[in-house]
Amino acid sequence: MKKAPQKEKGILVSGINPVMEALRAGQAEKGPPEGKSAPEELFIARGDRRGREIEEIALARGLKINRVSREDLNRLAGHTHHQGAALNIPEFPYADLDELLAGPVSERDPLIALDSIQDPQNLGAILRSACFLGAKGAIIPRDRSAPVTSTVIKTAAGATSYVPVVQVVNLWRALKRLKEAGYWVVGLDIAGEKLLYEADLPAPLCLIIGGEQKGMRPLIKNECDLLLRIPASGPLDSLNAGAAAAIALAEIQRRRIGKD
Amino acid sequence: MKKAPQKEKGILVSGINPVMEALRAGQAEKGPPEGKSAPEELFIARGDRRGREIEEIALARGLKINRVSREDLNRLAGHTHHQGAALNIPEFPYADLDELLAGPVSERDPLIALDSIQDPQNLGAILRSACFLGAKGAIIPRDRSAPVTSTVIKTAAGATSYVPVVQVVNLWRALKRLKEAGYWVVGLDIAGEKLLYEADLPAPLCLIIGGEQKGMRPLIKNECDLLLRIPASGPLDSLNAGAAAAIALAEIQRRRIGKD
Repeated sequence: MKKAPQKEKGILVSGINPVMEALRAGQAEKGPPEGKSAPEELFIARGDRRGREIEEIALARGLKINRVSREDLNRLAGHTHHQGAALNIPEFPYADLDELLAGPVSERDPLIALDSIQDPQNLGAILRSACFLGAKGAIIPRDRSAPVTSTVIKTAAGATSYVPVVQVVNLWRALKRLKEAGYWVVGLDIAGEKLLYEADLPAPLCLIIGGEQKGMRPLIKNECDLLLRIPASGPLDSLNAGAAAAIALAEIQRRRIGKD
Repeated sequence: MKKAPQKEKGILVSGINPVMEALRAGQAEKGPPEGKSAPEELFIARGDRRGREIEEIALARGLKINRVSREDLNRLAGHTHHQGAALNIPEFPYADLDELLAGPVSERDPLIALDSIQDPQNLGAILRSACFLGAKGAIIPRDRSAPVTSTVIKTAAGATSYVPVVQVVNLWRALKRLKEAGYWVVGLDIAGEKLLYEADLPAPLCLIIGGEQKGMRPLIKNECDLLLRIPASGPLDSLNAGAAAAIALAEIQRRRIGKD
């Protein structure tokens, strides 16, 4: 939080799966998106065999490969959850909503959707909480929302190596899609009809968190099956979006654990 | 988070009680602390009668009084919870632990103690969550911890107008004092013996949150009656201190509500 924003010379994704997916996306027939250049540079921790397959693909594609120490990779990634591999690419490899929904319920419950978190630090913090508390994916809209940048990846402390992030053009339509797939769409709202602590939280569930200033947009709020509130026990009328997300995800976690 | 750090030309405290307390502290016989100048400048929202007594005291003491619009006061304070009064003073008016402990239990449960949060944004966010979720006071050590600065006050979004913040020279001794006063001292720790969701959380209780990097110091950890953990449902091994504080305070809130 104390550093000046760095120049974004591409994005460093890390972790075996994200790097593999980014390499595969770069190989797709349609080519790199919007005239941007393909994946450029691979960083592999010396002596880490988990990155072997990645290295082979990268080698076959003629990418520049850097073998670095684990410590250097920690420093480059800004966290220790890189699993020995990182790839510098033009943009973050977002996941696909339909692919995410194709898995078994246990691998896609709960989800979190953010409408619309504009502060990269907040987005990173929410992704970190989501990953720790067991969320299986995050959905963000493309407009009026912070995209996944290097700042987000660092604040997320490794979460973006594990939790798929889906970027959608239209969040409202994505919620419709989730409901068709059997999801309960549950929004956190200061004027929610029920207390978070008292409501049913059935699976599969997608939790919606509104933006820092105005909360959810009315269109999104209308799409919620349930609007829940965290009770104010003090004189303040709102929580930080990151704190609200953490509390709600923890409550979902608590219920899921109780049912095991 | 996006602005460059401003020069700290004193601190603007706001809210009827904090301003009143700061004025009273300035009037104490011992005079202003450590050679710093006394309270300097009062800002009162025009037409707000809640600030009348404050204005009279300030007038009697010869302070400069600025009558400003509510909008200007919002802008100066960085939040809307100023209750029509703000005072520019050399340092934040910390509360006194013994005075805090003198009140009835309902007015001093739960408390939160921070060991040692060094990022002002984190400290402000935790104070905001604490206030919203019903914490009655926060304890911070003087060394190796962010003090309450203007940045903290703004990030806290008004919380410092309501939640007393006690700054102690020795946090370990303060915990001893709390235990003498009947408090349960409960620490959050990644290796805690019990799940937060399953442990007893009796009143009065003081929740201890460790710093961003290393968690609680061993000395402080040893003083805890109970070490609780938030379970990791994903591959990450830690939560942000602010998220952990919010989750634990919400769980305490949930239990307290259940008992009403």
